[in-house]
Amino acid sequence: MDSNTLILQYQTIRAHTHSICQSLATEDYVPQPISDVSPPKWHLAHTSWFFEEFILKPHYPQYKMFHEKYGFLFNSYYQTIGEYTNRAERGFLTRPTVAEVYQYRHYVDEHMLTLLNKLELTTELAKLIELGLHHEQQHQELLITDIKYILGHNPLFPSLELALTKNDPTADQEYIAIASGNYSIGFKEDGFCFDNELAQHTVHLAAYEISSTLVSNAEYITFIEEGGYNRVELWHDEAWYFIKQHNITAPLYWHKINNIWHVYSFSGLQPIKLTDAVCHVSYYEATAFAQWREQRLATEFEWEVAADKLTWGARWEWTASAYLPYPGYTKASGAIGEYNGKFMVSQMVLRGSSIATSPHHQRKSYRNFFYPKARWQFTGIRLVKC
Amino acid sequence: MDSNTLILQYQTIRAHTHSICQSLATEDYVPQPISDVSPPKWHLAHTSWFFEEFILKPHYPQYKMFHEKYGFLFNSYYQTIGEYTNRAERGFLTRPTVAEVYQYRHYVDEHMLTLLNKLELTTELAKLIELGLHHEQQHQELLITDIKYILGHNPLFPSLELALTKNDPTADQEYIAIASGNYSIGFKEDGFCFDNELAQHTVHLAAYEISSTLVSNAEYITFIEEGGYNRVELWHDEAWYFIKQHNITAPLYWHKINNIWHVYSFSGLQPIKLTDAVCHVSYYEATAFAQWREQRLATEFEWEVAADKLTWGARWEWTASAYLPYPGYTKASGAIGEYNGKFMVSQMVLRGSSIATSPHHQRKSYRNFFYPKARWQFTGIRLVKC
Amino acid sequence: MDSNTLILQYQTIRAHTHSICQSLATEDYVPQPISDVSPPKWHLAHTSWFFEEFILKPHYPQYKMFHEKYGFLFNSYYQTIGEYTNRAERGFLTRPTVAEVYQYRHYVDEHMLTLLNKLELTTELAKLIELGLHHEQQHQELLITDIKYILGHNPLFPSLELALTKNDPTADQEYIAIASGNYSIGFKEDGFCFDNELAQHTVHLAAYEISSTLVSNAEYITFIEEGGYNRVELWHDEAWYFIKQHNITAPLYWHKINNIWHVYSFSGLQPIKLTDAVCHVSYYEATAFAQWREQRLATEFEWEVAADKLTWGARWEWTASAYLPYPGYTKASGAIGEYNGKFMVSQMVLRGSSIATSPHHQRKSYRNFFYPKARWQFTGIRLVKC
Amino acid sequence: MDSNTLILQYQTIRAHTHSICQSLATEDYVPQPISDVSPPKWHLAHTSWFFEEFILKPHYPQYKMFHEKYGFLFNSYYQTIGEYTNRAERGFLTRPTVAEVYQYRHYVDEHMLTLLNKLELTTELAKLIELGLHHEQQHQELLITDIKYILGHNPLFPSLELALTKNDPTADQEYIAIASGNYSIGFKEDGFCFDNELAQHTVHLAAYEISSTLVSNAEYITFIEEGGYNRVELWHDEAWYFIKQHNITAPLYWHKINNIWHVYSFSGLQPIKLTDAVCHVSYYEATAFAQWREQRLATEFEWEVAADKLTWGARWEWTASAYLPYPGYTKASGAIGEYNGKFMVSQMVLRGSSIATSPHHQRKSYRNFFYPKARWQFTGIRLVKC
Repeated sequence: MDSNTLILQYQTIRAHTHSICQSLATEDYVPQPISDVSPPKWHLAHTSWFFEEFILKPHYPQYKMFHEKYGFLFNSYYQTIGEYTNRAERGFLTRPTVAEVYQYRHYVDEHMLTLLNKLELTTELAKLIELGLHHEQQHQELLITDIKYILGHNPLFPSLELALTKNDPTADQEYIAIASGNYSIGFKEDGFCFDNELAQHTVHLAAYEISSTLVSNAEYITFIEEGGYNRVELWHDEAWYFIKQHNITAPLYWHKINNIWHVYSFSGLQPIKLTDAVCHVSYYEATAFAQWREQRLATEFEWEVAADKLTWGARWEWTASAYLPYPGYTKASGAIGEYNGKFMVSQMVLRGSSIATSPHHQRKSYRNFFYPKARWQFTGIRLVKC
Repeated sequence: MDSNTLILQYQTIRAHTHSICQSLATEDYVPQPISDVSPPKWHLAHTSWFFEEFILKPHYPQYKMFHEKYGFLFNSYYQTIGEYTNRAERGFLTRPTVAEVYQYRHYVDEHMLTLLNKLELTTELAKLIELGLHHEQQHQELLITDIKYILGHNPLFPSLELALTKNDPTADQEYIAIASGNYSIGFKEDGFCFDNELAQHTVHLAAYEISSTLVSNAEYITFIEEGGYNRVELWHDEAWYFIKQHNITAPLYWHKINNIWHVYSFSGLQPIKLTDAVCHVSYYEATAFAQWREQRLATEFEWEVAADKLTWGARWEWTASAYLPYPGYTKASGAIGEYNGKFMVSQMVLRGSSIATSPHHQRKSYRNFFYPKARWQFTGIRLVKC
Repeated sequence: MDSNTLILQYQTIRAHTHSICQSLATEDYVPQPISDVSPPKWHLAHTSWFFEEFILKPHYPQYKMFHEKYGFLFNSYYQTIGEYTNRAERGFLTRPTVAEVYQYRHYVDEHMLTLLNKLELTTELAKLIELGLHHEQQHQELLITDIKYILGHNPLFPSLELALTKNDPTADQEYIAIASGNYSIGFKEDGFCFDNELAQHTVHLAAYEISSTLVSNAEYITFIEEGGYNRVELWHDEAWYFIKQHNITAPLYWHKINNIWHVYSFSGLQPIKLTDAVCHVSYYEATAFAQWREQRLATEFEWEVAADKLTWGARWEWTASAYLPYPGYTKASGAIGEYNGKFMVSQMVLRGSSIATSPHHQRKSYRNFFYPKARWQFTGIRLVKC
Repeated sequence: MDSNTLILQYQTIRAHTHSICQSLATEDYVPQPISDVSPPKWHLAHTSWFFEEFILKPHYPQYKMFHEKYGFLFNSYYQTIGEYTNRAERGFLTRPTVAEVYQYRHYVDEHMLTLLNKLELTTELAKLIELGLHHEQQHQELLITDIKYILGHNPLFPSLELALTKNDPTADQEYIAIASGNYSIGFKEDGFCFDNELAQHTVHLAAYEISSTLVSNAEYITFIEEGGYNRVELWHDEAWYFIKQHNITAPLYWHKINNIWHVYSFSGLQPIKLTDAVCHVSYYEATAFAQWREQRLATEFEWEVAADKLTWGARWEWTASAYLPYPGYTKASGAIGEYNGKFMVSQMVLRGSSIATSPHHQRKSYRNFFYPKARWQFTGIRLVKC
């Protein structure tokens, strides 16, 4: 990638982060209501810290850090770099203020652009910057999901000007048949991908039929009304304990008001649109629903093989695959090596992308991953015939 | 109290709350780092809600509430009034914003002043307003202690312009001897007091000698250096578990840097002033220190009887008395009855006042109370010879 | 006390411990279902350890310990003596077996009797042995309450031959008036008492009227049926959270079966006897009940002054007094000093004794103490007119 | 399988359970020190309940249950059958006694043998009985691991006569090369298997080289000594938190005494045998070790394909595969359907068998599964070259 393209990308992507936050009140940037949900302020700082730590510190001549303690405050999890703030206590840090965090972003941007304009970029450095931009795009989606969580759990159910550009596609459901055989899996195009998509390899698949559409709210309401959340035989053992312990009886953000299902979105609390794809369900709920329908989720390989024939982009789709390394996967050395590999246990793969995913940040080989109980992402369900 | 005096008091006290907060960043108003520490924003709203709920709603003709959900959001614990926000989750409420809370305060003030100017105040109503003002003054001290906790736990140790007008008094220590005999306890003057100070009653005291001064930082450092935190025989059983579980080895806000004890104050992290009274210790620490010195804390009755001969006002002083009702104590009926009585279990009485106590909000009969583990108040130690 | 009397007492009291356990199955000796409830096996060993540690080791010539690790296993809380088993994990120790523990008791008894027969007892040593016997008697009551907890929480509700010799007395209720005045408090007789009863001192009491009888099951059922457990204004703040969190709606061991209240006793699950004194209530419940009756609990001083006019012995009676040191109280030095003093925080005093208290182990100056939430002791309610 | 063979198997397997327990003290049968570890008494009863619930109740004419409440007490997790004892509280049930549990076993055996002798067995019923026997064999291994946990955490480190018949094999290490290709996976022989092994299917494997031997204690000690437990880059993110939170610095049962590694076995605490295969490691530890060696674990498919060329039987071997349904897997209907399927989330597959596995209870297609943190099973490590 040439310098000019990289500069343009850098500017566009960094600006998009700001546009996501433009309607936030200062207060909205602060809290961390659950461990998974980071303060928006933290996302803004952490993505800048990534450029400061991995690009500016090693490559910008005599780089002077914006603030010596920000590394400690905004390192997310790169344990090889040293001590960092207790992950669950990010929401108590009122300082630096939002304004100071924006100054930090500005400072990093200025230096990055100076660097990008002056430097003969090595391929390695260009790749690292590209990684930083994809990292920022990942946090853009997290910004949206975390803001939604913060506002959607406020009893005032505030609305916010935050336009999600993509809409739920509408299509008739059909089942697409894929033949048995050996298929090649993994990133094949040119351009950027994460290390967890690499190492093309062959898998053998039995024949299967995959739905062209996602499960709708209407279908999910039927599941609820037919007692889905009280039929123990539909649930995994740990799932059953989880939903009973947390009194879960519907997707996140759903509220039954005067016998009508409502859902919180950035427009506030609204009656549910029945034709939309169901959203904010856990893997537990996705598999219980599939079990109830006597179907199943696709494996990530089945999903990837069929991807060209599917419409996708509305919801991250839970797959039946655990998040594990591909054959031949190796971690990068150093802190960058912590990017993906260390999460490859106890989580499930999601494929596709969602209405909150940043533009140009989707690939059919993309492997997203969350714990099976996670509900605050824009997650949905696609079925495969057993 | 006549109307004009009450109006003046109302204006002065409400304005003082704002002056405490004047240097805060918007972000500082939001978090609740531990259950005890409420968001400053919440204090501002809750004290206004008190006037709205108990004065304006019942007494202002056709009063229109500022917002129908604020009762739910800012009721602290008056359970008889209905559902309220989970106490531990106040810090996640980014809305209403700080600006909206100030609008709420302004709205309540306008209506209160209209009411105060127009109304023939009944004695009962005047007393209720006076209670609201003393309630606000209690929250003024909590505002200061809570702001200190929020900033004092930030790794940046930010300083804040928040002047505490009172200083630590300096005096030579002597022991004041009080003779054995029957003494009368409880509020005796004119003017306001809380219900827990009422019901004058007689107690019999054996002779005792009480220190004229509080324990200093210098003395407390000696306690630390002589192994006080590791000598199990000095501590209550539950205290020992508590300090070991939480790795407590010094008062709150103390940090040993390059072998010098520093302490966080609103001026930032500073070397400790040895002659100041030790501050931010729990009842557990206060009694362990007394045990180490082979002395003891005063009971709240000994304290009150000696009060006129003591200088006080620097620290809330832990007493050896549990917080229990005085003989003849009865709770007011209705929600106001929840003010004090329901806390009369498992807590200890503190007497005096502190450098963070609001002006005119101290009485020698005043009974403050906290759980024995509490450290975030401006608490200190006064000794009595065994 | 002369040697022969002490020998007789030693034999009688130690034998009584065995008689309490005589109908237990081996399995009943093992578990610790909650932290408060120790394994019966542990009580048997711990009371023997007391004699081994404080009498035999220092005073028996060339004493050879029964097992070098038993000190570690059966020290309860004497932290000055060294490391000891995590208090909450006593129930996982299947070894030593019950038989081995009885061998340990036998070994200690043999040596103690040798010592008692040979030795010219110093007064100090006699007092220490007497303390050990009173310690054993305290654990006899705990054995009964702990066995009851273990069996009473088994879905089979097994009965056990364990005769409690005392019965609930029956008497007509009257209120006994005590005049205002100064009264002397504390142990005054000859003979044994614990250090926490010492230091006679004067208290001033206002006039009061105290019930001659305890609150009955019939009265308590009325409290339940009139919604006592759902009327927030009757409860302390921490009590309300506690009963709601633990779904407490009746005293411990009560079960409503086919609309009839049953209670577990050593005879199994039986319909409640309405005239019996209510039992197994917490301080929280006792005060809520008193509040509902618009009366109150007695202070421990009011109780002691009236004691000669009361029938007592059926239930430990919650008082309105926190467990705090008497004026002039000092702890014994060394490990024995841990006996009482270190528990003087956060607990409430109970006076009287119960149907499970060992014979000759009751005094009107006796100060029992438990946390306000405790329900597994034989605790009841006596009212005083406000 | 004909009736006589089944009768013989029934008698042999049921008797083997008793032989495992023959040296236990009564007390050893009672506790549940952690949720994973059930009381031996419970295993004895639960395996009998299985036959009573699924065979005798539906198939024995006019069967009279041994005790009406045992279903409630000894149902493990078959939620479709109804309410059952809180899983974490099994250790508090002192009744039924051990003797009563053995009577229960005897009663069930008598009726089972009557049934087996009289009945024309349908194939379906024979299969259900066979399932019950394999279920019992699974619990035989759990009995051993749970007894080891109970005794191995007792500070007395008691030894027990419990002979594990199999020994660690000794062999020189070599790497066995397997060629790339499509392979058939799943149970192929005649005879019994669990439903999770069924549904033969094809997988494609890249070429790999698998170690003929397991990782030894000597190798693992090197890992420890070279700082393996403190090198964050070797560990999964959740693993790192886990080992730091629980202070894990060696396999379970390891103790460093006078600088020599000891390990608890049924012979008591003994110096470690360096050539033995390392045992009682979690999946976290297994992957960190592999990472340190720059190798990896085998997938369960790689393991199964190579199985005929491996010696195995000493340790359950953690694989790199999550426990997920095979293509085409369907659960049996009814409670038996809960046997395997509902655990297919968040756990890892182990292959092989261990020195505690019952004779004849191993197959190369056998899929064992545990959470990645589990350490109380006889688990070890086999490496594959990356």
